Amino acid sequence: MAGKKVLIVYAHQEPKSFNGALLKIAVEELTKQGCSVTVSDLYAMQFEPRATRNDIVGRLHNSEAFNYGVETWEAYKRGGLSKDLVEEQKKVQEADLLIFQFPLFWFNMPAILKGWMDRVLVQGFAYDVSKAYDGGLLQGKLSLFSFTTGGGQEMYSKGSISGDIRYILWPMQHGIMHFCGVKVLEPHICYAPENVSEEKRKEMLTAWTQRLKTLWKEEPIDCSPDWYFK
Amino acid sequence: MAGKKVLIVYAHQEPKSFNGALLKIAVEELTKQGCSVTVSDLYAMQFEPRATRNDIVGRLHNSEAFNYGVETWEAYKRGGLSKDLVEEQKKVQEADLLIFQFPLFWFNMPAILKGWMDRVLVQGFAYDVSKAYDGGLLQGKLSLFSFTTGGGQEMYSKGSISGDIRYILWPMQHGIMHFCGVKVLEPHICYAPENVSEEKRKEMLTAWTQRLKTLWKEEPIDCSPDWYFK
Repeated sequence: MAGKKVLIVYAHQEPKSFNGALLKIAVEELTKQGCSVTVSDLYAMQFEPRATRNDIVGRLHNSEAFNYGVETWEAYKRGGLSKDLVEEQKKVQEADLLIFQFPLFWFNMPAILKGWMDRVLVQGFAYDVSKAYDGGLLQGKLSLFSFTTGGGQEMYSKGSISGDIRYILWPMQHGIMHFCGVKVLEPHICYAPENVSEEKRKEMLTAWTQRLKTLWKEEPIDCSPDWYFK
Repeated sequence: MAGKKVLIVYAHQEPKSFNGALLKIAVEELTKQGCSVTVSDLYAMQFEPRATRNDIVGRLHNSEAFNYGVETWEAYKRGGLSKDLVEEQKKVQEADLLIFQFPLFWFNMPAILKGWMDRVLVQGFAYDVSKAYDGGLLQGKLSLFSFTTGGGQEMYSKGSISGDIRYILWPMQHGIMHFCGVKVLEPHICYAPENVSEEKRKEMLTAWTQRLKTLWKEEPIDCSPDWYFK
């Protein structure tokens, strides 16, 4: 799909990791298709995950009691967000597809990536009063959560103690992306790459390459409670 | 319950906030009961949420390819974790009860608190091979998630678009605390304190004080899929 713009938000410390290999494949395959690919390599950027007063340039709306949500909303409207946030928002704005590549940490994304969500997707930019979910401000974009797990696939099934992997996806896919109006493609999950054979790892990398070849033909999931909990 | 030790991990930037008021109440009420209360005020501490090589003092186990999970596990065993992590682990080790006080950000805890989970609860300390869930290494402790929301209670019910609030609690309560062997008390949720009357806010603060008075008599929840998704 020549001309499509892709932003990959990547959260792994080690380029030689399995996550690093998945990132490399995505960049290569999507570039080959003629897409324009941008990577936010959060650890390499030393991306700040903490939501603080430093995110607002200049005077606060209410300096008596700091309210991050209100202050970033007001700062967004007057063009007063910190430079790193403005840059990430510009990348998001331009993207047709957002890919999040990360290792699952504690049933969730690593803090550095959660900080990207907390700080970049502010009110006024990603959603607003009465503009959420299908009315969210990032309508027209797609997203894809691609991640690795520590435990095997059998650990993340409905009857098992860790429950269905889809339970974990609810806050990320529905609570963040859907909330902003972004459609969600099927997640791409590589189970326990550290505990499988080299052959199996290669198979998983090939499967990702193959999926990317027809990615633009995929239909988004029906991002409603049924998909997660039925 | 004189003599009990409580660690409150607090993630709000503003002491004058509603979260700040809830923290103050917990410190005062529990201290009055004779408990020994410690607060980790994450923003005030400028707590580092990023999981990086800096968390390991001295030589890496494998400097060819950085693996955070393996490196922190190895560092824990040889006493080579960074000072800030050792201090937090000591607080956890000593505590009978962990209270997490925070505003819900994107269906989850703020990144700074997620970073506390990612960095403090390392393998060897909080769980280990075959030592997870009811066999987790932090057995004998209680936990309580106390948080505020932006949306009202009606937004977080089963039929609503944001779904049951319990769906959101699964990764935090079950995926982290239960995984480490920690029992979970009923969460304490204050809905939309920013959007209700001053009178209602006072009622919510009083309810928290009242709950704390009989907290030590509470039974933990049955932290299984049924509680969350039935």
